[in-house]
Amino acid sequence: MELWFTEKHTDDVNFSIKVDRQLYTGQSDFQRIDVFDSPEFGRFLTLDGYMMLTEKDEFIYHEMIVHVPMMVHPDVRTVLVIGGGDGGAVRELVRYPGVEHIDLVEIDPQVVAVCRKYLPQTACRLDDPRVAIHYEDGLKFVRTCENAYDLIIVDSTDPFGPGEGLFTKEFYGNCFKALRAEGLMVNQQESPFYPKDAIAMQRAHKRIVESFPISRVYQAHIPTYPSGHWLFGFASKRWHPITDFNRQRWTDLGFDTRYYNSSIHTGAFALPNYVKKLLEDVE
Amino acid sequence: MELWFTEKHTDDVNFSIKVDRQLYTGQSDFQRIDVFDSPEFGRFLTLDGYMMLTEKDEFIYHEMIVHVPMMVHPDVRTVLVIGGGDGGAVRELVRYPGVEHIDLVEIDPQVVAVCRKYLPQTACRLDDPRVAIHYEDGLKFVRTCENAYDLIIVDSTDPFGPGEGLFTKEFYGNCFKALRAEGLMVNQQESPFYPKDAIAMQRAHKRIVESFPISRVYQAHIPTYPSGHWLFGFASKRWHPITDFNRQRWTDLGFDTRYYNSSIHTGAFALPNYVKKLLEDVE
Repeated sequence: MELWFTEKHTDDVNFSIKVDRQLYTGQSDFQRIDVFDSPEFGRFLTLDGYMMLTEKDEFIYHEMIVHVPMMVHPDVRTVLVIGGGDGGAVRELVRYPGVEHIDLVEIDPQVVAVCRKYLPQTACRLDDPRVAIHYEDGLKFVRTCENAYDLIIVDSTDPFGPGEGLFTKEFYGNCFKALRAEGLMVNQQESPFYPKDAIAMQRAHKRIVESFPISRVYQAHIPTYPSGHWLFGFASKRWHPITDFNRQRWTDLGFDTRYYNSSIHTGAFALPNYVKKLLEDVE
Repeated sequence: MELWFTEKHTDDVNFSIKVDRQLYTGQSDFQRIDVFDSPEFGRFLTLDGYMMLTEKDEFIYHEMIVHVPMMVHPDVRTVLVIGGGDGGAVRELVRYPGVEHIDLVEIDPQVVAVCRKYLPQTACRLDDPRVAIHYEDGLKFVRTCENAYDLIIVDSTDPFGPGEGLFTKEFYGNCFKALRAEGLMVNQQESPFYPKDAIAMQRAHKRIVESFPISRVYQAHIPTYPSGHWLFGFASKRWHPITDFNRQRWTDLGFDTRYYNSSIHTGAFALPNYVKKLLEDVE
């Protein structure tokens, strides 16, 4: 027999992955959670049928959402991760000795439980003593915070379903307030290629531009996300992603990474003209 | 009814595009040629079932295979395009007033005829008076050339089937000989992500490194190619792709492009660590 998982990248484009077996399926209070084993991508996690991560390429997303802001802000001690129950962002963050405390705010405890059991590759550092996990709505959590974090990482699902509130103007405004005077925020910001994703990306960008004095977008090649061309938002009160990028600090850290490096850091902010136009149209 | 075109990106990964109708199908002396209309990507061309180009994203491939070398070599007058019967590379090349002559060597006249009829978006400039079309095997054509071209663009299919000879050491050596003393060559060089593509990419890189004193690899986001992460080889006798890149000349030209710009030029050569490692392993 053959077993195939299919994600509709659009109504007219299907991406299908051959599956060895389904390891887990469950319906939480928030979403359907599935874990599969596949010959091409190893183990992978889907929420409501959307690809969240695969063992083969999750390193790209997690390195890019963590090391880019960490190499711009000179002294990150406290971090808020919103979403990210798989633990991949935390795994990269705890590599930094200077990070003293990480609040991980994940709405769905079942995601964390499933990832702890089936995806140790990403969940492996969730028990680090610097990590506090809060099973709460990120939108509500951040409302209560003021001047508390050096870095906020919005590691959300797509802007529909449980992740929807994490793409609102109110949310970004509250993130601004929750950050210290030199704080910065990064967020996963969808893709510029397929029209529906591009509209979500533009909407998020518009709201971030309205909330932060410095707002840029950077990109990575993530083969298992729609179009493979994925964007991140970089929003900052003071530090500029390129001119304040500390190349020497990265070299000194000597981290072993598989995607991120100091040339990628700068290159990731070099956007194609068609993407720049989409962004400028809403600035 | 529903009609879907599927390309196997690997044995275990399918990429499927909903099709409105098949406009053309034919078997030439070299390959099966198909043209489809699709709601997501507009018209698209496949050879032996492999995606060659879609109206929606061909601009990325063609801008990147042409403008990168054109902005490094200061005075390109004669160009050899091998493959590229769709005309997309020629369309970008004839925008340069300094280009005096283009030899387009396409093995399959039926590809050119089909593209002229069904894909005017790429084939539109094949009748430019500076373009000479030769229906010959690129491998044989280039054997007869010496000190003749400023730029060679290897716009080939994949390294199996009719395009196979365009990935050999003999071919790259002949390209070196066919170039003038300051000449350079670019080639489409597959993807680093899926193992089979990555092996082909490594093999091509190894052979180019052995043939040219300067050899670098650059990348673009091309959503309809496997993994969306596509590579190009840049091989040169004298000019370095970054240090000899003339940013001002690009600004002065004032070309309207949808992907390429002067930041992309540099950023495209910033490769992820895992890609750098694949390349270093064969250097």
